[in-house]
Amino acid sequence: MSLSYGQIDQAFLEQLVALTSADRVSTSQALCEQHGTDESYHTAKAPDVVIFTLSTKEVAEVVKLCAAQKVPIIPYGTGTSLEGHVAALHGGVCIDLSQMTEIVEVRPQDLDVTVQAGVTRKTLNEYLRDTGLFFPIDPGADASLGGMASTRASGTNAVRYGTMSENVLSLTVVTPTGDVVRTSSRSKKSAAGYDLTHLYVGSEGTLGIITEVTLRLYGIPEKITAAVCPFPGLEDAVNMVISTIQCGIPVARMELLDDRQMYAVNEYSKLNYEVAPTLFFEFHGSPSSVDEQVELVKDIADEFGGTNFQWASQAEDRDRLWNARHNAYYAALALRPGCKGVSSDACVPISRLAEAIMQTKQDIEESFLDGTIVGHVGDGNFHTLFAFDPDNEEELLEAKRLNGRIVERAIAMEGTCTGEHGVGHGKIDYLESEFGKGGLDLMRSIKKAMDPDNIMNPGKIVRL
Amino acid sequence: MSLSYGQIDQAFLEQLVALTSADRVSTSQALCEQHGTDESYHTAKAPDVVIFTLSTKEVAEVVKLCAAQKVPIIPYGTGTSLEGHVAALHGGVCIDLSQMTEIVEVRPQDLDVTVQAGVTRKTLNEYLRDTGLFFPIDPGADASLGGMASTRASGTNAVRYGTMSENVLSLTVVTPTGDVVRTSSRSKKSAAGYDLTHLYVGSEGTLGIITEVTLRLYGIPEKITAAVCPFPGLEDAVNMVISTIQCGIPVARMELLDDRQMYAVNEYSKLNYEVAPTLFFEFHGSPSSVDEQVELVKDIADEFGGTNFQWASQAEDRDRLWNARHNAYYAALALRPGCKGVSSDACVPISRLAEAIMQTKQDIEESFLDGTIVGHVGDGNFHTLFAFDPDNEEELLEAKRLNGRIVERAIAMEGTCTGEHGVGHGKIDYLESEFGKGGLDLMRSIKKAMDPDNIMNPGKIVRL
Repeated sequence: MSLSYGQIDQAFLEQLVALTSADRVSTSQALCEQHGTDESYHTAKAPDVVIFTLSTKEVAEVVKLCAAQKVPIIPYGTGTSLEGHVAALHGGVCIDLSQMTEIVEVRPQDLDVTVQAGVTRKTLNEYLRDTGLFFPIDPGADASLGGMASTRASGTNAVRYGTMSENVLSLTVVTPTGDVVRTSSRSKKSAAGYDLTHLYVGSEGTLGIITEVTLRLYGIPEKITAAVCPFPGLEDAVNMVISTIQCGIPVARMELLDDRQMYAVNEYSKLNYEVAPTLFFEFHGSPSSVDEQVELVKDIADEFGGTNFQWASQAEDRDRLWNARHNAYYAALALRPGCKGVSSDACVPISRLAEAIMQTKQDIEESFLDGTIVGHVGDGNFHTLFAFDPDNEEELLEAKRLNGRIVERAIAMEGTCTGEHGVGHGKIDYLESEFGKGGLDLMRSIKKAMDPDNIMNPGKIVRL
Repeated sequence: MSLSYGQIDQAFLEQLVALTSADRVSTSQALCEQHGTDESYHTAKAPDVVIFTLSTKEVAEVVKLCAAQKVPIIPYGTGTSLEGHVAALHGGVCIDLSQMTEIVEVRPQDLDVTVQAGVTRKTLNEYLRDTGLFFPIDPGADASLGGMASTRASGTNAVRYGTMSENVLSLTVVTPTGDVVRTSSRSKKSAAGYDLTHLYVGSEGTLGIITEVTLRLYGIPEKITAAVCPFPGLEDAVNMVISTIQCGIPVARMELLDDRQMYAVNEYSKLNYEVAPTLFFEFHGSPSSVDEQVELVKDIADEFGGTNFQWASQAEDRDRLWNARHNAYYAALALRPGCKGVSSDACVPISRLAEAIMQTKQDIEESFLDGTIVGHVGDGNFHTLFAFDPDNEEELLEAKRLNGRIVERAIAMEGTCTGEHGVGHGKIDYLESEFGKGGLDLMRSIKKAMDPDNIMNPGKIVRL
């Protein structure tokens, strides 16, 4: 498909201003560059203009204007994605939704909430604090909920609460023609027609723009306790996780950090954990249910040589523990100041996890490049962070080669190239090996039908 | 869109036989009529021919043949759907998948299983018995798992385990062009591209044919106990349910039967339950967790006047209890021998449930037609069964009028016209009021893109 996009000239910019206001439309080079850049190593590409919208209606009007002139549109939340999702590959208009921060309605009686797309997960949880409810999905970064829905994000406690796929009840989207569509009702289940909600969750702005998100909420557990436990070997730690999942124990979080990653975390966060493969746990429930889970998990850990549990029951101790985990990416990068990171994101059926991780560890050992392993292992999902010198082409190629091996191995194990980071343009070339030509043809036909001019975040997920 | 379908002549039938065998292709009038008929009141419409396939490959070949000649295709599992899903509105080929009964692979270590589409849920659970695992989704009928995926079925214990939407991990589908596509990997989560799995779950054969289903499995709970409890009034029973859900108690089943339905159940199953609004419960978990749930639920029930719990802990007692519940539809029909039933299927946010049910009860009281209420109330989903004399046009019109009121009320409450039965052609005219024109346009564009000749179960979900 040959692309022929409209031009962004002075007249077009004036129309954008007319739809919003002068102070919310910017062509400043610094601002545009920032909006074309995410937290990954992928080459950034600035949009031609950034517009800050305040409402679904404004987004719809901007989309209609762009659609009429075939100008590409890239939605932007907090810019914390990792596969080049926000790069304006064909220029165009970046719609920044970060000022759409209204919490539209909290409905404690229905255990749900509707927010504008720019509300971040931390802001939402602070707002909810007095209701006794919380939103569990936690990808580490304080991402916007619209962005999290767009990329099908998950993170540390998806093992218990699921991902954005399970926790988005309904969306308001602006379609490529500028229509405003509510993707489903607020009922807990429905068999009414094609599942538009799940089609938009993970569509990365390529089928339209998510402007409001209705999310499931959960009661804050009566008891929460966390723990850290080192293991004699990496395989022991992973096998412990596999057993826990196979026993159906509903742990809330179960995170793996390998020895190298623990070293990085100690250095970065000034901690003194044992430098060994380590699991971080969190348990949620009634006091008796948490006690029951803890006993079962300790028994299993014991089988695999994990005996030295350090407990954190107070909120501040738990926060310290999880901050150390959440900073793992920055900690790994800090091992080599000035470097950038390539993060793999494979996810495999749990029975194949030990194999997938041990072969990855061996790849790292055989490479000249340093790498650390960290993972949401309860879901079969793990990341390998390769820190490379951006001025050294050879290092980048090696990081990509290793990432490619991890992806191929995951797909061969009936797993996926991306458990939670999404496709963007960084993983676009792996989809065919995961879905086959037939699967990719279906995705292309959906994209072409819904966005025939390919103006919605072009060059992401599928190439036309 | 004007429909122009190919003819089914002798040459075409011979080609079907060549792809399968003579004993698996039938134009017998009785067989064709049976295959165009479901369990509902909707007018049946026989296909021109029924073909029994044994493999994905055969399905793909039949689809390719039909696609080449633009012949409509209707997939068939057990024929237990309720919205005219299997009616061959434009004639064509019915592909009966009920002989595709292979349990392809059980993977206890991954808590999943892959089955051919014709395996029924009871067959699967019998097969799994020795593994200590089970598949929880239970729509009452012993439906095929392919059919259940196709209609996004749920049933009595969706309140704890979710619906088919949450429990299908991956599908093998034959697309409208005859390609065989695996909709996703077997990893527990993925952010790789458009969510083809959820697009096919609930697509009712209109986007292709599901030939294999990979499902999540669960460990059989250590302890299961069930109970029946009558309440002084309908509103008390519903409010008890709402409180239980709002407290986050993970009951496995929580079913409502109104007084009239209890009368019918007693008559039909020769039981002597109190004729009062009644809740049926089931609790799953470790012994201590079940005890904890039971105590909490008894306290809540007590607040609403529900004190007379009858317990069933032994498997056979529980089976008797749930058989009574599962036969509710037949019991209601048996109140008037020779009648047919219209079943509503509204689902609303839990906070609106009492209102929705009480207004429905009032509608029934004001009508000359009898109706019973039964529901998966933990999900906000309830059915009203109107038994009508098929020879009395006025009664059918009244049943439809009442059903229409229930749907409109549900949509006005941010609910859905169908919680679990699906759209078929029976609910097709309600989708626009639920999704708006924009939402319906999206669905139409997906259907047109994937099935431009509209050969896949035409006339269902969306009209083109």
